Amino acid sequence: MKDRPYNLYAGPAILPLEVMEQAREELLDYAGTGLSILESSHRSPGYAEINDSAREDLRELLGVPESHSILFLQGGASLQFGMIPMNFLRGGKADYVNTGAWAKKAIKEAKIFGEVNIAASSEDRNFCYIPALEDLKLSPDADYVHICSNETIGGIRWARFPETGEVPLVADMSSEICSRVIDVSKFDLIYAGAQKNLGPAGVTVVIISDPMLKRCPDGLTTMLDYRTHAEKDSNYNTPPVFSIYIVGLVLKWLKRRGGVAAIEEVNNRKAALLYDLFDSSDFYRGTADPGDRSTMNVTFRLPSEELEAAFIAEAKKAGFIGLKGHRSVGGCRASIYNAFPEEGVKALVGFMKNFEKES
Amino acid sequence: MKDRPYNLYAGPAILPLEVMEQAREELLDYAGTGLSILESSHRSPGYAEINDSAREDLRELLGVPESHSILFLQGGASLQFGMIPMNFLRGGKADYVNTGAWAKKAIKEAKIFGEVNIAASSEDRNFCYIPALEDLKLSPDADYVHICSNETIGGIRWARFPETGEVPLVADMSSEICSRVIDVSKFDLIYAGAQKNLGPAGVTVVIISDPMLKRCPDGLTTMLDYRTHAEKDSNYNTPPVFSIYIVGLVLKWLKRRGGVAAIEEVNNRKAALLYDLFDSSDFYRGTADPGDRSTMNVTFRLPSEELEAAFIAEAKKAGFIGLKGHRSVGGCRASIYNAFPEEGVKALVGFMKNFEKES
Repeated sequence: MKDRPYNLYAGPAILPLEVMEQAREELLDYAGTGLSILESSHRSPGYAEINDSAREDLRELLGVPESHSILFLQGGASLQFGMIPMNFLRGGKADYVNTGAWAKKAIKEAKIFGEVNIAASSEDRNFCYIPALEDLKLSPDADYVHICSNETIGGIRWARFPETGEVPLVADMSSEICSRVIDVSKFDLIYAGAQKNLGPAGVTVVIISDPMLKRCPDGLTTMLDYRTHAEKDSNYNTPPVFSIYIVGLVLKWLKRRGGVAAIEEVNNRKAALLYDLFDSSDFYRGTADPGDRSTMNVTFRLPSEELEAAFIAEAKKAGFIGLKGHRSVGGCRASIYNAFPEEGVKALVGFMKNFEKES
Repeated sequence: MKDRPYNLYAGPAILPLEVMEQAREELLDYAGTGLSILESSHRSPGYAEINDSAREDLRELLGVPESHSILFLQGGASLQFGMIPMNFLRGGKADYVNTGAWAKKAIKEAKIFGEVNIAASSEDRNFCYIPALEDLKLSPDADYVHICSNETIGGIRWARFPETGEVPLVADMSSEICSRVIDVSKFDLIYAGAQKNLGPAGVTVVIISDPMLKRCPDGLTTMLDYRTHAEKDSNYNTPPVFSIYIVGLVLKWLKRRGGVAAIEEVNNRKAALLYDLFDSSDFYRGTADPGDRSTMNVTFRLPSEELEAAFIAEAKKAGFIGLKGHRSVGGCRASIYNAFPEEGVKALVGFMKNFEKES
């Protein structure tokens, strides 16, 4: 096998090597059954254990209170963009904060179902910052407030979250779930496509409060009513068995790493290595405002697009792949999710310093 | 590794061993990239090739005309039960044929969106047959006609399909897709959860005609509009990369086996081994009417529930797992999908003959 490159793609993204090694080890024979998990029934006792322990491990890791259900759904955040207003914005009004491409997609879908109040936007400076909490124009009568807690394209994240009082707070955490300690009890709905910090593409985690579940309306098609999945422990219909199995392995890996608080420290150190380089360099320029910098998606520019193209090409030769910024903004981006090793960031910084010298 | 049991579960179901061996072989390093397919971006060239070739192989295997798009979606047949009427039954009327639990689930969801005419039902005899084509009370003004081409619980399948003229024919083929030659051009929409004949749980194949796509209404949430996925080759949002990769391997395996016509012959032989046993035995009794017998899900009874319980337990000890009938009907069921080997059916028949002798 060729050496593994450093995978800096924004998602689907790097998984812990030991998780993939375990998956490989037991791919033909799961837990002595003689069957692959790929061909195992979702009604088998083995799968019940996978489903339960993934849910319980996530509950423990994120400190999810008993008032909240954890669901494993399909369709990614993109389906949640529609499913949330379909359930909770029934001709009323919802507050959305526009922080980038992902927030915008959520806003577009919400408008199909009701009135959307843009409580704040950072589009004026190309989404390089999170609007200040005191600048949010929240509606006291909103059905909910929606934020995207980390924007992969702008490389920004909410350092603190808004206090929304009685109004439910809903957050897309696809690109940062389990990367830092959060107070789940402040949210009524958190959703995350697994393919960045939790596992492979094909499963979406939803954490939803009991009061929010009670607000699901009757008359929706069964699969799009959150209660269907909460009542059946995400086993109403055939779940994406293998993807949930991998999520379970990733969560156990995270527990072995010491949990979310421990990985948050590592993530802070990893991000600081890059941001410190930007702050001490005239060559590399971070694009996000310092107070709103993401620890997961580190976005930066070089002095020219020609240098950026050369940088990305040279980096690839040196084993760092996925550094190209999103096509909508250009530039460079290093996605350094939980599974991306600290030594990989050090190696990248070393490469970047050399590249600067030689340019 | 312990010997592999014969996996007779109804789904998720047995996969070809050589497919799983290949997946295992390249799990840590896909096509020399040094990355696992589990962590590969859906925008990478490697995935584009996986997506394209899975689609093209399915087109070739099923003879899908160019007038039809092939989509890889999420949410299983259960989401299709709602998505189909959401798109095509907008306050009008649709004809549904009630042949069992799966048809009933589809009917329940359709009623949310419009009027449902039950064109025929086999509930009077506990879904042990398919209504005769001449007994279907089809509506000339229906938006579409919906059938479930193979019912896993009753063990029945449509030997021939209704002629619906100008009215689109829609079929749930989850439990028999690629098991026999069909004329795809007669259908405007075919859907199938992959987890029986195509791959692991987590991906749903939809085959949809251009005229049907044109009928998708504006104003749906983006992910539930079939056009979204047709226009972006199922890459609008992050697809279930790994599941589609496995589907691709299964399709290549099927091509090596000679394609659908060749596997249909094998399937007919496999099913005949069991049905011939029933027809020559007073001990085993097939539950489906002979003309409507499924080649995928073979359902049968023994003289008493006690004998059935003993049979299932003894069979399990002998390495045949998943023989218990669906909890809603009891009895026994052998699901012998494409990947279930002919020698496995012979071994099962041998076991059954012995069990009869010793009982």
